Amino acid sequence: MPEADSTRVVAFLSDYGLVDEFVGVCKAVVLGFAPDVRFVDLSHDVPAHDVRAGALTLVRAVQYLPADTIVLAVVDPGVGTERRLLAVECEHVTLVGPDNGLLAPAVAMVGGAQQVVELTNDEFRLPSPGPTFAGRDVLAPAVAQLALGTDVAELGRAVDPNSLVPGLLGLPQFEDGGAVASQVWWVDRFGNCQLNVGPDELEALGAERGGPVEVHLPGGATRAARWVHTYADARASELVLVVDSYGLLSLALDRRSAAAEHGLNAGSAVTLVPPGASVATTTA
Amino acid sequence: MPEADSTRVVAFLSDYGLVDEFVGVCKAVVLGFAPDVRFVDLSHDVPAHDVRAGALTLVRAVQYLPADTIVLAVVDPGVGTERRLLAVECEHVTLVGPDNGLLAPAVAMVGGAQQVVELTNDEFRLPSPGPTFAGRDVLAPAVAQLALGTDVAELGRAVDPNSLVPGLLGLPQFEDGGAVASQVWWVDRFGNCQLNVGPDELEALGAERGGPVEVHLPGGATRAARWVHTYADARASELVLVVDSYGLLSLALDRRSAAAEHGLNAGSAVTLVPPGASVATTTA
Amino acid sequence: MPEADSTRVVAFLSDYGLVDEFVGVCKAVVLGFAPDVRFVDLSHDVPAHDVRAGALTLVRAVQYLPADTIVLAVVDPGVGTERRLLAVECEHVTLVGPDNGLLAPAVAMVGGAQQVVELTNDEFRLPSPGPTFAGRDVLAPAVAQLALGTDVAELGRAVDPNSLVPGLLGLPQFEDGGAVASQVWWVDRFGNCQLNVGPDELEALGAERGGPVEVHLPGGATRAARWVHTYADARASELVLVVDSYGLLSLALDRRSAAAEHGLNAGSAVTLVPPGASVATTTA
Repeated sequence: MPEADSTRVVAFLSDYGLVDEFVGVCKAVVLGFAPDVRFVDLSHDVPAHDVRAGALTLVRAVQYLPADTIVLAVVDPGVGTERRLLAVECEHVTLVGPDNGLLAPAVAMVGGAQQVVELTNDEFRLPSPGPTFAGRDVLAPAVAQLALGTDVAELGRAVDPNSLVPGLLGLPQFEDGGAVASQVWWVDRFGNCQLNVGPDELEALGAERGGPVEVHLPGGATRAARWVHTYADARASELVLVVDSYGLLSLALDRRSAAAEHGLNAGSAVTLVPPGASVATTTA
Repeated sequence: MPEADSTRVVAFLSDYGLVDEFVGVCKAVVLGFAPDVRFVDLSHDVPAHDVRAGALTLVRAVQYLPADTIVLAVVDPGVGTERRLLAVECEHVTLVGPDNGLLAPAVAMVGGAQQVVELTNDEFRLPSPGPTFAGRDVLAPAVAQLALGTDVAELGRAVDPNSLVPGLLGLPQFEDGGAVASQVWWVDRFGNCQLNVGPDELEALGAERGGPVEVHLPGGATRAARWVHTYADARASELVLVVDSYGLLSLALDRRSAAAEHGLNAGSAVTLVPPGASVATTTA
Repeated sequence: MPEADSTRVVAFLSDYGLVDEFVGVCKAVVLGFAPDVRFVDLSHDVPAHDVRAGALTLVRAVQYLPADTIVLAVVDPGVGTERRLLAVECEHVTLVGPDNGLLAPAVAMVGGAQQVVELTNDEFRLPSPGPTFAGRDVLAPAVAQLALGTDVAELGRAVDPNSLVPGLLGLPQFEDGGAVASQVWWVDRFGNCQLNVGPDELEALGAERGGPVEVHLPGGATRAARWVHTYADARASELVLVVDSYGLLSLALDRRSAAAEHGLNAGSAVTLVPPGASVATTTA
């Protein structure tokens, strides 16, 4: 169990947006119990109900959080259904949120769960004037308890760490001909498209840093791309592959949006074809 | 008077948006005087100059704020006119903002004002290179003084609490035939439309939980709806009424936007017709 | 050198947006080293790669920051190129960011640099799984060191303060005929258009407060405007000039967007023609 320390950092991610007062109300509830907590907002503009996008944001961020951070994560399309609300204690951080695949990839990234409980202890819930608002009435009070040093085990009944709903992050498919069918995991603000493929994987297929890679885009278009060292190495309008600052390959244009100009979104299928490789024939 | 406590929470609501530096500058001014204040942002994306939307956001949030919170609220279409800038001390919180209806509903929600002053004391104002920027030059310094333990009475001249400009929140109209002409108070991020009607009021008109309620939409369309227990009880495309987590009735679709699909906005008129009730004839 | 004080304010400005986790990750990195820092967000919605807009936002805000604030500023289209990353110590604040014109106007506003270093000390950099992410891996750790009391000189090699890349803020051109060719520096959320001209400059050209000024808009249109004392003095649809709360002239409409109705953006050319002045003929 992390030490009791009321100045702990709470990293907060949600799909609440910043127009409504949801985020502020959840923070107010935490501060009402644990006034010394420090909040770090990871994002509140996760697309509404998009568990996968939230999970990917968490997994990119979690390794950079201070030790003993409490992660409050709410992307919860299952409001009112039987999905469980959990606290997941890991060595590096403790995560609090719904059990719908949102937490599992971050839990794996930090080495797995040490202890998991379902937040069934009514003593720590806030009364609600209507149906339970999970973030405000259950998760925020649980976060406050953890910040105050309450043991995770006191928040509810123990859950088998292996029963967590797994995350739905697509993995790359390595084809027989030497190509790799990949997926856009994330389009960042600048329009760079992070793929679910690392540089070592592409190198193992025979591609070389500095050399060409053919890119098959959704809809059937094929584009020549070059694997460059940095965004600035791209020539005007040249589509490039570049290792991004998370260590994954990204499709990019210099100072322009690769996503906008090539019609790519999170989830788009992109096949990378190194020199000499061939692509599996697929029916259009 | 709340105790002097320099670590007090300041809950901040405005229509400044987050693109310009207004919000940050107001916080910097507060921190320059009162470095231990903790900010909680309620929303800065209140539609520009929309006092009613700001008042509704405040009234939903205020009951969740820690005791002795200072509320800084700025939606101020009357910049440069004679509207007063106030500090309103209540038992639970102290509110600071323009006297234009923005504060009054929240003041009522927390039990009324104990002491009200107009922020006329020039000693606490910041000099401005141009006309006064109320948030930065008057309201933020007043918030800082309150956080430092300055008595509200020192901020300016006393004002009769009964003279506050009242809020303009529409109330439901109960028709002779048993229907209720209501108003959409709020469309949340998920497109749920909160009405100004509570479940007890609808029940008194003969509607039953689990049963049907006819809904007359703006433009004359009539839709069958069902009063369900939770959002997830809605069948595909079924319009439902549900008690939301603030204890009010809300028009909703499961995981889709009732506002978008039925053309509803904040302020839209919606008539609820329980079984057996009739609607007043209105000229189109 | 400012005193070591781990509770220092860090004012953070970037073009990262709030959808991705960049802002939160940079804050988490700072808090991992310097847990008592307090963040004030100035804006994270600077248009992507728009150094000029970021510099203008900084220059408006910097004078309102508490003494000894550390300013973390990241608008960095030169990622991966040779641009330098700097810490610039001034008497009032210390600024950390890329040397591309973003910092220089704010540095000038607070009286110039006392000491400048390039952040070359690898000891304080975070290891990256891919190419360096400047905000996360270099700038945030440097900010943390400054907050912990590390002398700026320890962060890297000394740089001549006169070698800073200057900001690109357009200055007004005073024409022979008595008109002034100005530029919109900033369109605020309400559509008010701040010009790069002060009231003293317009007065020196013969315009009078309360009197008329002709305004030549982009595209050739000419509009009669009036120089009023406050936004509320504008009559319905009347275009007015008003000294804004930063002490500069602004084109405005009462409670409506002058930018939207007159097609103005940041950077738009606007010529002000006081009574009796004439405009230089320009080829269309």
